[in-house]
Amino acid sequence: MTDIRQDMIEPLYQAVQQTRPLLRHITGAVEAGLDETGLTVGLRAILEGLLLTGEASLPELTARLQLKRQFVHKMLGEGQEKSLVEALPHPRRKNGHHYRLSPQGRNLIEEIRARELRAMATFAQGFSSREIAAFIRVQAALNGFFRDMAGR
Amino acid sequence: MTDIRQDMIEPLYQAVQQTRPLLRHITGAVEAGLDETGLTVGLRAILEGLLLTGEASLPELTARLQLKRQFVHKMLGEGQEKSLVEALPHPRRKNGHHYRLSPQGRNLIEEIRARELRAMATFAQGFSSREIAAFIRVQAALNGFFRDMAGR
Repeated sequence: MTDIRQDMIEPLYQAVQQTRPLLRHITGAVEAGLDETGLTVGLRAILEGLLLTGEASLPELTARLQLKRQFVHKMLGEGQEKSLVEALPHPRRKNGHHYRLSPQGRNLIEEIRARELRAMATFAQGFSSREIAAFIRVQAALNGFFRDMAGR
Repeated sequence: MTDIRQDMIEPLYQAVQQTRPLLRHITGAVEAGLDETGLTVGLRAILEGLLLTGEASLPELTARLQLKRQFVHKMLGEGQEKSLVEALPHPRRKNGHHYRLSPQGRNLIEEIRARELRAMATFAQGFSSREIAAFIRVQAALNGFFRDMAGR
């Protein structure tokens, strides 16, 4: 697969440079969608992390979400205040905690994700499966390519 | 084009969620590439902005780059210190300035971009033109989709 035309390199380069505005728009869209839930984007990310991990300690959740430990700690506190997150004694460590979703928290984040997935389905109607698959594949490769370049 | 398969929606959703790590890796890669130039990612963006606009006032450059005015101002100062940016009297306003690249600044940012474009060309060899085109098209559409959702 080396039929890549030289005149596609510059448009690809420009597309890569659109990653920053794209992230800003995604964040804005997620925020807009949370309006009626009272959640922030940060707390939404924590609930999603707990949904996908099941149960996690603060360091585990921090590593998984690649966020700052202090921020995750703060968000877990907010989640507990809103009765969306439950803290359990850590199974192996005396002073540690494990965190998990409350039933209410689980319902909320599942609803939010279902709504977001419906938006994705609407979006995807404008494209063929082949195009969506190509997007996913190229994007994943870009992620690895730049991670390697950044790693030195 | 509505042959989109339902089982592609979840992978697309996950790919969209990879935008944040992708931006982090891109920034890291750009930083790594700047090592020998003495530039920061911020100053690189300013030089690129001036390359693409030709000549610009602080508000024009701020709007184009969608960065904070104070940050752009600071970077323009650094650029002048390094003799990469020149300040000219504003053609229409008494106390305003216009900024442009010095010949040295132009050479530097052109070299940086040429190197980055070569890296993109290397990356793109793993894909067909059709795949790269699909990536560009879907990514641009995602950008508009989320911008509209965010705008309310």
